[in-house]
Amino acid sequence: MTLRVQKYGGSSVAGAERIQAVAERIVRARQAGDQIVAVVSAMGKTTDQLIELARQVSNSDPDARELDVLLSTGETVSSTLLAMALHARGCPAISLTGLQAGIRTDAFFSRARILTVDPERIRQELEQGRVVIVAGFQGITEQMDVTTLGRGGSDTTAVALAAALRASTCEIYTDVEGVYTADPRIVPEARKLPTILYEEMMELATQGAKVMHNRAVELGWAHGVPIYVASSFTDAPGTLIQGTGQAGGPMQIEVSNKVQAIAHDPNVAKITLLRVPDRPGIASAVFAPLAEAGVSVDVIVQNSSVEKMTDLSFTVARGDAARAREIVERVGKTISAGGVTSDDTLAKVSIVGAGMQDAPGYAARMFQTLAEAGINIEMITTSEIRITCIVRREATAEAVRALHRAFRLETPEGAPKKE
Amino acid sequence: MTLRVQKYGGSSVAGAERIQAVAERIVRARQAGDQIVAVVSAMGKTTDQLIELARQVSNSDPDARELDVLLSTGETVSSTLLAMALHARGCPAISLTGLQAGIRTDAFFSRARILTVDPERIRQELEQGRVVIVAGFQGITEQMDVTTLGRGGSDTTAVALAAALRASTCEIYTDVEGVYTADPRIVPEARKLPTILYEEMMELATQGAKVMHNRAVELGWAHGVPIYVASSFTDAPGTLIQGTGQAGGPMQIEVSNKVQAIAHDPNVAKITLLRVPDRPGIASAVFAPLAEAGVSVDVIVQNSSVEKMTDLSFTVARGDAARAREIVERVGKTISAGGVTSDDTLAKVSIVGAGMQDAPGYAARMFQTLAEAGINIEMITTSEIRITCIVRREATAEAVRALHRAFRLETPEGAPKKE
Repeated sequence: MTLRVQKYGGSSVAGAERIQAVAERIVRARQAGDQIVAVVSAMGKTTDQLIELARQVSNSDPDARELDVLLSTGETVSSTLLAMALHARGCPAISLTGLQAGIRTDAFFSRARILTVDPERIRQELEQGRVVIVAGFQGITEQMDVTTLGRGGSDTTAVALAAALRASTCEIYTDVEGVYTADPRIVPEARKLPTILYEEMMELATQGAKVMHNRAVELGWAHGVPIYVASSFTDAPGTLIQGTGQAGGPMQIEVSNKVQAIAHDPNVAKITLLRVPDRPGIASAVFAPLAEAGVSVDVIVQNSSVEKMTDLSFTVARGDAARAREIVERVGKTISAGGVTSDDTLAKVSIVGAGMQDAPGYAARMFQTLAEAGINIEMITTSEIRITCIVRREATAEAVRALHRAFRLETPEGAPKKE
Repeated sequence: MTLRVQKYGGSSVAGAERIQAVAERIVRARQAGDQIVAVVSAMGKTTDQLIELARQVSNSDPDARELDVLLSTGETVSSTLLAMALHARGCPAISLTGLQAGIRTDAFFSRARILTVDPERIRQELEQGRVVIVAGFQGITEQMDVTTLGRGGSDTTAVALAAALRASTCEIYTDVEGVYTADPRIVPEARKLPTILYEEMMELATQGAKVMHNRAVELGWAHGVPIYVASSFTDAPGTLIQGTGQAGGPMQIEVSNKVQAIAHDPNVAKITLLRVPDRPGIASAVFAPLAEAGVSVDVIVQNSSVEKMTDLSFTVARGDAARAREIVERVGKTISAGGVTSDDTLAKVSIVGAGMQDAPGYAARMFQTLAEAGINIEMITTSEIRITCIVRREATAEAVRALHRAFRLETPEGAPKKE
């Protein structure tokens, strides 16, 4: 008997009708003889509504512990409704909270990390022939306080349960059909990938692809859990995220096209600290207070100069730009910098592929493609399996389309190995 | 230091503004140097909305276990919001679920009974100077399944906690100012009672008074917890429900007016089984299936006749009338009864007072008063401290007003001892 963990996101359980559709899907999976553990998110806009209530009663930021208890009710509600919808179809089912599902976390409210999973109760219920519905995004501390897992929380619950239960797959059902070579709304000929490597998916997620949070992908990678991403709205085949060593896994290393997909993020801001003294300790003086304030810094570029002065630029998410600029202006004064400029009209475009690390020429082709399209590159950053260019926001779609064409991502074979 | 348990009902926490008002009230109580444990109901219509969601996903009745988990989220939400509102006022506070508050119940979902209360966590939080907010209406079984307590659930949570914590009082804040000699909407001169005995309050609650559920009153009586009922919308003094033996308790036994208050219930139906053979076992044949179906039978009247045939009448809540009639018609056939009639246009009016048990003449005065008002009495039932008459529904208000006048309940002295 195969044990499958399925996760249904907020849009998949957004109302009674959607919950019925998910119940139908689970019933079909169960009729195929499989054991099902389903992890659910809160219904549609529930979490936003609860946050709004919290804001109304708190003059300032609501207390993190209380907010976690409050938000956790959203997933609890959808878990019980899905169980009821299964009962209405004659399918034995039981909902479990994070506590009941044995999900123990640390006590960092609003961004707790899972410490251990004790799936004893889940196993008992499965043995009694029940579908087990687990409220995602939530856990419990040793002191029995409710926590939430922060971003990508329900995906993380699902992958952690799949690991603990040694499930055959962790299936993430969402409102897109899988992982594409680029956003199909921008590139109509974008192709759905049947498989992708964990590390490629992590790069794509970090660089703007919305399909899955990289935290859950990382957890799947660490525990070797194959993650299948598909739509809960259709029966179209999705994308399997897995490692090179897994049975049936992709062998991209040897195929000709080493670019797997293109990610883009249209919400990038650049902050520049002008005429900074070029001496040790400056980077730390600038970036330590940003880290303390919880601002994630992405690309960093420092232009050295002969006069022992430098311009220090970095990018942040557009939503963090105002806060970052404020902090940097304060720091700038203490280190006698020449001023601060910022630009929140930027975007980033990335090509990702595990094979790129062994083959030269990808960066050159990327830069050439953008140049031919008349798109200026503001900043560049790379990892082993990724090249990212910062461009002006209005050029985003054209950059993605041009790169998709240049690397011929519309066909599985992709671009010729050598031009 | 005085420990007070307070309970705020659904209308008292119906929105952000009401929650702020409750927070203000708690802050004031705390500034007086008292320790506060506050039990909250779900916000306004939340429970109804959740039930509607459950109905939408369940073709039939939703599973009781799942429904309990679902409904319990309503109280959890309001508990966290109240804690946040206290934080916003600089008042240390923490919300606890039924589980965290140590409320252990049996596993009868939707109508669980509290088995034990382990207030260890509450004590710890109080010792740290925090106001403790407990989600009412919910508990946890030995198997860590969430239960709800059914009718009067949050009141019951509050009284049980007050008993376990040996609190000085259990304060029930609601949308009325206390217990009145009659419903002030019907009798404008109705008087708020400063005190009332547990047993009197139980009779009033059973006979239609909406202020408090008799279950919570009974629990307070069993544990000697003084219950103070007042409005969360005003600062007007409320009503203290207590026993004769308690300090400051009322001594109604010796005061002249032995009628404390008048209760009424306008939703009564009468079912009559005609020409029933007058032999042993008939009552059991009729009432056992009603009990199994969960129909509460109130007044029962059997008119014996010389021909070994009798008419058997009983009353039920109007909402149960159709179901009761269906069951009785089925039973009637098996015992060769002459037919079934029903009338769902009735009401009951009761006079309640602990002193009535030692003094004759109250029944006579009640019947005379109704007769003078031209109101026909359909059925009569009594307890030690109560007399109830079933009348036509349209006569309810006039009956209550006439009785209030006859027993002079508008003054604390009431009617003269002897006419």
